[in-house]
Amino acid sequence: MKIIVDAMGGDNAPLAPVEGALRAQKELGVEILLTGRTEEILSCLDQLGHKTIPKGVEIAPASQVILMEDNPARAFKEKPDSSMTVGLKLLKEGSGDAFVSAGSTGALLSAATLIVKRIRGIRRAALAPVVPNAGGNMVLIDCGATAECTPEYLLQFAYMGSYYAQRFLGIANPRVALLNIGAEPSKGMDLQKQTHALLTQAHEAGRLNFVGNIEGREAMSQGVDVLVTDGFTGNIFLKTVEGAAILFSGALKQMLLGSTKTKLAALMLKDGIGQFKKRFDANEVGGTAMLGISQPVVKAHGSSNGYAFFNAIRQAKVVAETKVVEDIAANVAHMRLDQKEA
Amino acid sequence: MKIIVDAMGGDNAPLAPVEGALRAQKELGVEILLTGRTEEILSCLDQLGHKTIPKGVEIAPASQVILMEDNPARAFKEKPDSSMTVGLKLLKEGSGDAFVSAGSTGALLSAATLIVKRIRGIRRAALAPVVPNAGGNMVLIDCGATAECTPEYLLQFAYMGSYYAQRFLGIANPRVALLNIGAEPSKGMDLQKQTHALLTQAHEAGRLNFVGNIEGREAMSQGVDVLVTDGFTGNIFLKTVEGAAILFSGALKQMLLGSTKTKLAALMLKDGIGQFKKRFDANEVGGTAMLGISQPVVKAHGSSNGYAFFNAIRQAKVVAETKVVEDIAANVAHMRLDQKEA
Repeated sequence: MKIIVDAMGGDNAPLAPVEGALRAQKELGVEILLTGRTEEILSCLDQLGHKTIPKGVEIAPASQVILMEDNPARAFKEKPDSSMTVGLKLLKEGSGDAFVSAGSTGALLSAATLIVKRIRGIRRAALAPVVPNAGGNMVLIDCGATAECTPEYLLQFAYMGSYYAQRFLGIANPRVALLNIGAEPSKGMDLQKQTHALLTQAHEAGRLNFVGNIEGREAMSQGVDVLVTDGFTGNIFLKTVEGAAILFSGALKQMLLGSTKTKLAALMLKDGIGQFKKRFDANEVGGTAMLGISQPVVKAHGSSNGYAFFNAIRQAKVVAETKVVEDIAANVAHMRLDQKEA
Repeated sequence: MKIIVDAMGGDNAPLAPVEGALRAQKELGVEILLTGRTEEILSCLDQLGHKTIPKGVEIAPASQVILMEDNPARAFKEKPDSSMTVGLKLLKEGSGDAFVSAGSTGALLSAATLIVKRIRGIRRAALAPVVPNAGGNMVLIDCGATAECTPEYLLQFAYMGSYYAQRFLGIANPRVALLNIGAEPSKGMDLQKQTHALLTQAHEAGRLNFVGNIEGREAMSQGVDVLVTDGFTGNIFLKTVEGAAILFSGALKQMLLGSTKTKLAALMLKDGIGQFKKRFDANEVGGTAMLGISQPVVKAHGSSNGYAFFNAIRQAKVVAETKVVEDIAANVAHMRLDQKEA
């Protein structure tokens, strides 16, 4: 198993991706192919105690870097020798089993769609982050790859999210719910009503475990395994959870550091606070799978540290090993409205 | 100042509304007109230590109650003698200055729109809850009254939310932001792009303090005073914040009650936890203003206790006193696309 890692993407590149890659090579037994500026990568390796390129690690030189200010739709073409473009071309050619990048989400989406291509029959790719809820973790799909969706896109997202939850979260029969403003099938706009009908059909055919509409409140406070929504709403949902987490942890910190007495209490709670933080820490998950692309692509968070890159590579390995892409491709006939049986 | 209170709406009716009304009459110096079943209200008054109807409190008999299972659009007509219908008719006739109900949101919206009517020129009513964020509190508008919106509706929501934030939150020049999936004006779907242009125009004309697009994350973790969005997205936003609050407070509780040591720490944090809870407690705000209706209407939360009703009545009093409705009516010409100056 060889994972291609964009060494130049993200706020902490190239040190963080190189650090995460080294750890992944050592602990997960994967081979690593780093794309980027050779000298800068060698300098990071040196900083991390490696005078030469370690065994199991290779470098594929790429002289350019895609920046956040580049046009997402054109960046990979305008910078054909960027670490992202080079990495995706290597993936396409079969020089690796998965690609991990913390570069611009929009550029990665466009580049993956146009270089690696979507799975045949899949209309749109989707970003599927893992989000903690009271029941454990759920797959949110889509969180922003495709802002405006049709019922068919959402049907495809539901299937893709379900396969991913099975393989990556290890849930045998994932409960799939549609994010909506009420539980009844009549709730929401046309998009939600029509999608509800399609998901109900898929459920009745025994292909999906669709449990109905769910509101934002219950999605977080109760258990569901796959939360299906369009990219606009999913992005609002995800960012709102992140913002609420910042607000609450800030208020918690203020409470704990208020006085000598509360500081003492905070000390007594040290272990618990550590676990609490770990549970809601984005670095623990690593990255977000880009589902619908014909080979495994994982988007690492822009602010990823070395540990987050390690986790993103671990995630890419699981996606490649468990053959989520193959699951989707094998079942794509059920996901296309123009090919549905009567 | 006389506040009309639906004594039969909400999970804890009629005791909670009657209790909140009594307290409001005593502490806020308002007169109260309770609508509902006389005998049940008298029995609650008796329970609360009043053998006779206290001074400053009246009862307007209404034999019917609108239930959650009633059709929201037709309930007020099908039950013409319901506590909600009777209360809104009294408001319309001038027998009170504001109406508070914890009954079905959909029924209240339809009934208020059809009995009391919207302000002339306002296309749709909006529900504007007050939501805590890191900067203090913000007005979210709309949170579910109108799921599908046009740019003109959102322009009107922005103005209405701004007047309400001025009067109810006491913010002199409220910062108005549009909830979106990125900060740049080009982000979002047509609705957001067109609304951004309208809000920018209003800002340039000096009528609104529009600060641009904002993501869910920054809306919670930074400061903004008015958050404008369509009812579908606003409902997802609000419910997600509520769900995240439940998740975090559950995890916090688990952490604090884990062992004898952590229980001791929890005891030391008692005051802080109390303040923390108070800050995020829906009962503290009371209710949600229904803006765009030609007289003050406040929706109390279905699960309101007596204290929440007291706060909802206080809120209704502020809305009536500060003349938010008059503010909106006086400026409606700027909010209509068909009447805009070239």
